[in-house]
Amino acid sequence: MMRVGYLGPEGTFSEEIARTFYAKQEVTLQPFTTIDGAIRAAEAGEVDESIVPIENSLEGAVNITLDTLVHDVHLSICAEVILPVRHNLLARSETVAVTRILSHPQALAQCRQTLQRLYPGAHLEAASSSAEAAEIVAQGAKETAAVGSRRAAAVYGLDVIAADLQDSASNCTRFVVLAKQPLSVLPKGLCKTSVVCQMNGEKPGSLCDILNEFASRGVNLTRIESRPARTGLGVYIFFFDMEGNDREREISEALQAVAAKSLWLRNLGSYPAAK
Amino acid sequence: MMRVGYLGPEGTFSEEIARTFYAKQEVTLQPFTTIDGAIRAAEAGEVDESIVPIENSLEGAVNITLDTLVHDVHLSICAEVILPVRHNLLARSETVAVTRILSHPQALAQCRQTLQRLYPGAHLEAASSSAEAAEIVAQGAKETAAVGSRRAAAVYGLDVIAADLQDSASNCTRFVVLAKQPLSVLPKGLCKTSVVCQMNGEKPGSLCDILNEFASRGVNLTRIESRPARTGLGVYIFFFDMEGNDREREISEALQAVAAKSLWLRNLGSYPAAK
Repeated sequence: MMRVGYLGPEGTFSEEIARTFYAKQEVTLQPFTTIDGAIRAAEAGEVDESIVPIENSLEGAVNITLDTLVHDVHLSICAEVILPVRHNLLARSETVAVTRILSHPQALAQCRQTLQRLYPGAHLEAASSSAEAAEIVAQGAKETAAVGSRRAAAVYGLDVIAADLQDSASNCTRFVVLAKQPLSVLPKGLCKTSVVCQMNGEKPGSLCDILNEFASRGVNLTRIESRPARTGLGVYIFFFDMEGNDREREISEALQAVAAKSLWLRNLGSYPAAK
Repeated sequence: MMRVGYLGPEGTFSEEIARTFYAKQEVTLQPFTTIDGAIRAAEAGEVDESIVPIENSLEGAVNITLDTLVHDVHLSICAEVILPVRHNLLARSETVAVTRILSHPQALAQCRQTLQRLYPGAHLEAASSSAEAAEIVAQGAKETAAVGSRRAAAVYGLDVIAADLQDSASNCTRFVVLAKQPLSVLPKGLCKTSVVCQMNGEKPGSLCDILNEFASRGVNLTRIESRPARTGLGVYIFFFDMEGNDREREISEALQAVAAKSLWLRNLGSYPAAK
């Protein structure tokens, strides 16, 4: 049976989306305590695929996913999935005052303004995942609540004492499925392609030159994200997402042209675009 | 006396850089428990300036700084300062085994590989700041160490049990000084200008068009950073840093042209470039 890695434990948003995405397949879901752990497990062959968050509509890139993808593994993106995120405040039924709120830092960041309004004195504290936060609360931490999913409330026997804490109603997280091999057959319908590259030199206009290779061929970039190259302040690598697949002539030509102007370029794969 | 906000408590890297930057001025340093708290205090007039991290050479943008700057306040950048970051592992002298390592998530992220090599089984846990982590260790948390500065070791009476934990020798953090008014007089020498804008529409090539306005005038962009616009997945705002000041003709014309092609553009100010 296919094994799929995700950020556990039981009750995380990653588990929720993994259950939804693989609903029609027989798979074994295997939790990891960190996102990079789940990604490295796919590289090491401990799992066949991993499903990890890559971007949130409020908090932006999930840096650990981008950095692990480019520095530590050679995996391909096989699918993307978008999950609307609803955050809730979970507490034991006997809790009367909340002075400490735990969750994954991204979850806390997505609710920062609402939590500040509803619980102005509460101390926000990071946990490894929203589910770990719920577990700590369930184990009896005093005056403590967790930001997490309704499923986490059910798993850990907690009450939902406040719902829809996210600062924006449009709060969505985009996940990607990573595997050792790129998709060999692309289904019909809209695809996306992701690549990452490092500019050749820091001269003015290098990024502009590269964007022109896409624009002049009518390739629509849906996302540009810069990350440090890790060789010094001011040196960056760029992630590009585009509409279309790398078997299409415009994209394959654009990628060749961009590769020729880059220090290096890696094609992370083409995959069906999420609806 | 001028009051300056920073991410406290005593012993943080922010305090270290504030002490260095204001060494020749009489100032009162005022610690805040969060970065956005320090920024908002400058907006509210509780302090005259705040000095906050904006970018690290390994971990990239400090998102809370960018997001607070664009969504919550109207402050100007008056200076930038670059600090080489040296991380150390701090523990009480009686500690023999380390199974838990605390620090600010950015500090942990900057040492992830080294910590995994030296302490493969240790559980990494987030604290509000590296100094708070040191304080928790000093208070007697068992088998626990903190990632922090040598100054934090001195302040909290801890031993440095491992030095230079950062994954890259080039690990630097860039700080900015924020105030209500932009600098009225710019000193001689190289300046930088920072702006933030949202593209007008999502059509292919919008970013390319904007970059062309800089490139065609020979304006050298030193940094491009995208952040979510917070209105939905796939909608971004862009931060641009460039060499030069906004009183120079090329830059002022480029900014006018970019503003005309943007939904909105905000000039965050011109300031002397760090050496």
